[in-house]
Amino acid sequence: MMATIKVHGSPFSTATQRVLVSLYEKELEFEFVNVNMGAGEHKKEPFISLNPFGQVPALEDGDLKLFESRAITQYITHENPDKGTQLLCTGKQMAIVSVWMEVEAQKFEPAASKLNWEVFYKPFFGLTTDPAAVEENEAKLANVLDVYESRLAQSKYLAGDSFTLADLHHLPNLHLLLVTQSKKLIDSRPHVSAWAADITARPAWAKVLAMQKS
Amino acid sequence: MMATIKVHGSPFSTATQRVLVSLYEKELEFEFVNVNMGAGEHKKEPFISLNPFGQVPALEDGDLKLFESRAITQYITHENPDKGTQLLCTGKQMAIVSVWMEVEAQKFEPAASKLNWEVFYKPFFGLTTDPAAVEENEAKLANVLDVYESRLAQSKYLAGDSFTLADLHHLPNLHLLLVTQSKKLIDSRPHVSAWAADITARPAWAKVLAMQKS
Repeated sequence: MMATIKVHGSPFSTATQRVLVSLYEKELEFEFVNVNMGAGEHKKEPFISLNPFGQVPALEDGDLKLFESRAITQYITHENPDKGTQLLCTGKQMAIVSVWMEVEAQKFEPAASKLNWEVFYKPFFGLTTDPAAVEENEAKLANVLDVYESRLAQSKYLAGDSFTLADLHHLPNLHLLLVTQSKKLIDSRPHVSAWAADITARPAWAKVLAMQKS
Repeated sequence: MMATIKVHGSPFSTATQRVLVSLYEKELEFEFVNVNMGAGEHKKEPFISLNPFGQVPALEDGDLKLFESRAITQYITHENPDKGTQLLCTGKQMAIVSVWMEVEAQKFEPAASKLNWEVFYKPFFGLTTDPAAVEENEAKLANVLDVYESRLAQSKYLAGDSFTLADLHHLPNLHLLLVTQSKKLIDSRPHVSAWAADITARPAWAKVLAMQKS
């Protein structure tokens, strides 16, 4: 049995959302502790004792303190194999899940997060979008999505026939791409587009978005 | 039983080195297939069928084809729990290993690899180092290493008392920092310096460096 899990973060942070959607997929109870990033709470005590890098999210499970969103989602999933959605595989198939988790972290996220900073967050904060940065990161992301298009022509999800953490980790940045001009990068690739529609329609993701309204 | 593992890569690629050192730590037999990157072999068939992103390394184990160095090291370690060095933990301690594997991938590697490009690879290829890029990435890496210094004051290795994949994944970029002007970032932090001396002295790492001479 786990103690009541505490998640420290912001429902507007993509990394926090990655943890929240994994908790909803696993149908786990948790307490959400809002970190006021506007007031710089993530750079001060007590948060800095949870994550010395001063970035949301952090997780507490009894005495265990974790940070880095992808480490947290893997912990949640490994500790609760019999609850909610499966999200991981065993044996050699798990190696395929690992490959596509790394692809998200190393290839998709760097381009998508820089692009979302320009086309979503900058306008939101009243800052001016840099067209050269948009062009550069749209080109990088297009190359990544070309590989995804081939991959998703062979299997419904990135690691095979079932939805796993490899897909789930994409949700926060994918959602932002779909509500901005960058949607064209998704729409122009039919298999990527079907995959994006499928995974963003999951009830667990709707629950994360609902947290932004409360 | 695994079939004979084939590693496709270059002994001069940091990502390839990460896989090689894990194979030596686990004391596994493998076949090394050199990919001539100067001739662009990593961007063409047959390599591109192993990794659609066209980057070394890739691994073949029977029918299983993997890429992304950190996915490969985890596969090798999970499949061979009883061989060589342990490298992973179980239960909640494994979550701590995951946190520090993510820190390496998300915090250490981006700054260290950009810095090594400027201070090691550019001079090696006869290109001109950009002092502004050196300054920017030395500052970023210094912030990361300040956190490591506090961490390594509490435990001998990043995830606790034993050497794990979280430490091992640092070896390729750490080695390059130690043979360039960036060594000062290590030398000025006593616990980081002791950790770096300890892990770069491992026999498995010496075997990787020896492959550069053959």
